[in-house]
Amino acid sequence: MAFFGDYRDFTGADAGKYFKRTLCRSDALMLGLNCLEPGQVQAAHAHDGADKFYFVVEGEGRFTVGGETREAGEGVVVWAPAGVSHGVESMGGRRLVLLVGIAPPPQP
Amino acid sequence: MAFFGDYRDFTGADAGKYFKRTLCRSDALMLGLNCLEPGQVQAAHAHDGADKFYFVVEGEGRFTVGGETREAGEGVVVWAPAGVSHGVESMGGRRLVLLVGIAPPPQP
Repeated sequence: MAFFGDYRDFTGADAGKYFKRTLCRSDALMLGLNCLEPGQVQAAHAHDGADKFYFVVEGEGRFTVGGETREAGEGVVVWAPAGVSHGVESMGGRRLVLLVGIAPPPQP
Repeated sequence: MAFFGDYRDFTGADAGKYFKRTLCRSDALMLGLNCLEPGQVQAAHAHDGADKFYFVVEGEGRFTVGGETREAGEGVVVWAPAGVSHGVESMGGRRLVLLVGIAPPPQP
């Protein structure tokens, strides 16, 4: 089904960990948001057989992909190939909002 | 291979049609940019067996997905499921920059 949506209508906060929301999902691709409040962390993890990207929509993060760590702000694309460990930590004083895609999507 | 890149380093113009750039590509997903100068059009087309999304990074566009047409500006996600016709026309006085993903990628 077609989808049109402003990402701002789907952001949020999860005090316990970080906030995740799926926007669209098919057998080939899951597209969603990750929102990290200041200081929140998405621990390094890997998806076997699935590639992942982040696109920084708001805020700043410290990303690690494989052995590489970089700070990135709005407008930066980060790509983690299948099987490569990746994670991110929110930096700065405001929420980090990431558009995230995983292809193919993780199984429920 | 990991990729970190600011989309602004990969934008451009193509006077003849519209500008396309691939940022990352795997067997599962192709991620890139489409840049449409004011008035440029990406004619309606469909990808058999591949889902596609647009994320509006700069500017404004009039998107058509299936029978639905909507105007969308920065921050809007547009999803066109496999086999559903989709296209976009650049509106307003400045370049429309779209982050685009296709899963799985078209064959060369």
